[in-house]
Amino acid sequence: MSVKYAVLGLLAQRRGYGYDLVQRFEEQVGPAWQLNAGAIYVALDKLEQEGLVRPVTSGQNGAPITRRRTARGAPRVIYEATPEGLERFEDWMTTRSAMSPLREELHLKLALSRPHNLPRLIELTYEQEEACLERLEQYLGGSSFDDLLASAQPWSAVASVMVRDAEIAHLQATVEWLRRIREAMRWLEERPEALRSRA
Amino acid sequence: MSVKYAVLGLLAQRRGYGYDLVQRFEEQVGPAWQLNAGAIYVALDKLEQEGLVRPVTSGQNGAPITRRRTARGAPRVIYEATPEGLERFEDWMTTRSAMSPLREELHLKLALSRPHNLPRLIELTYEQEEACLERLEQYLGGSSFDDLLASAQPWSAVASVMVRDAEIAHLQATVEWLRRIREAMRWLEERPEALRSRA
Repeated sequence: MSVKYAVLGLLAQRRGYGYDLVQRFEEQVGPAWQLNAGAIYVALDKLEQEGLVRPVTSGQNGAPITRRRTARGAPRVIYEATPEGLERFEDWMTTRSAMSPLREELHLKLALSRPHNLPRLIELTYEQEEACLERLEQYLGGSSFDDLLASAQPWSAVASVMVRDAEIAHLQATVEWLRRIREAMRWLEERPEALRSRA
Repeated sequence: MSVKYAVLGLLAQRRGYGYDLVQRFEEQVGPAWQLNAGAIYVALDKLEQEGLVRPVTSGQNGAPITRRRTARGAPRVIYEATPEGLERFEDWMTTRSAMSPLREELHLKLALSRPHNLPRLIELTYEQEEACLERLEQYLGGSSFDDLLASAQPWSAVASVMVRDAEIAHLQATVEWLRRIREAMRWLEERPEALRSRA
């Protein structure tokens, strides 16, 4: 649902076609979202049905303006936001945002595990930590938003870096958590008597 | 998809029926997942189709054992994990877990916003911070897993507290991030000249 409004926001910035919007979404929102490209096309369809976006027409015969053809020869339709679309986007921007759920598969494994799974769980914490550190490395050397503010960048650049900063903070907190629980699990592995058996 | 294996894990612990599994999921995994109860019933159907769980039968006539009737009078079927189900659950426990996406609506708003949205974005950071602090307060006074280890609790209790600790860490990191970006946004609000206009 939120992706719909993001597409509207991208079209409020300037016209675009499907794949172009996928690229702009990834560039502006960042990799943490793990965008499924199909969601952009679903959003475009919905937005068009609701009259919030429309294909850009040449004006002469009302045929949509298209850009390069896709590999299969289908024309790429260029879309623009309608006035209603722009208004709806601004409305969305002012609504309160609910917090998203935190749904990590590792949390389920941990919650449903039994003591005999401890050795494997410890390995999983290493694997997850490695994944976090790899992602963090990709962000290394990137500008902080404080840097950007000092060098008069456009707001869009500052905002994108703020979003990346949220992922960095999440990854760092996750790494610290993984190390904390790993230490406790190792301690337990050596002292199984510290656990009470279930009745 | 992961919920399916969680349901299998709950049934590996002991038999159960739909609503009972919803409650046990929420108790063991915690509120951060924001479980949609329907997902448990979908998972049960899939698991039964795959032969990983089955209704518990009375043995006499092969009729499923049921427990209390629902408000609409439909019998509540009790399920148990099959031997294949137990094996599949252990397989899942050992697979590597991919990191989940980080999909906060506030991130989209930030990434797609324009400078004129700054005042509202600042308000949104307050609202989100308040939501985080409210959730953190619910966890206040709860045991840490170090406490639990010191008092010989069952592993399941320790593991649940570890999962809650992941949410606490995430919420704390989010609060710090919100404060950081709010400070930068306020600075910008007072110095619009610090932003370069888009070409």
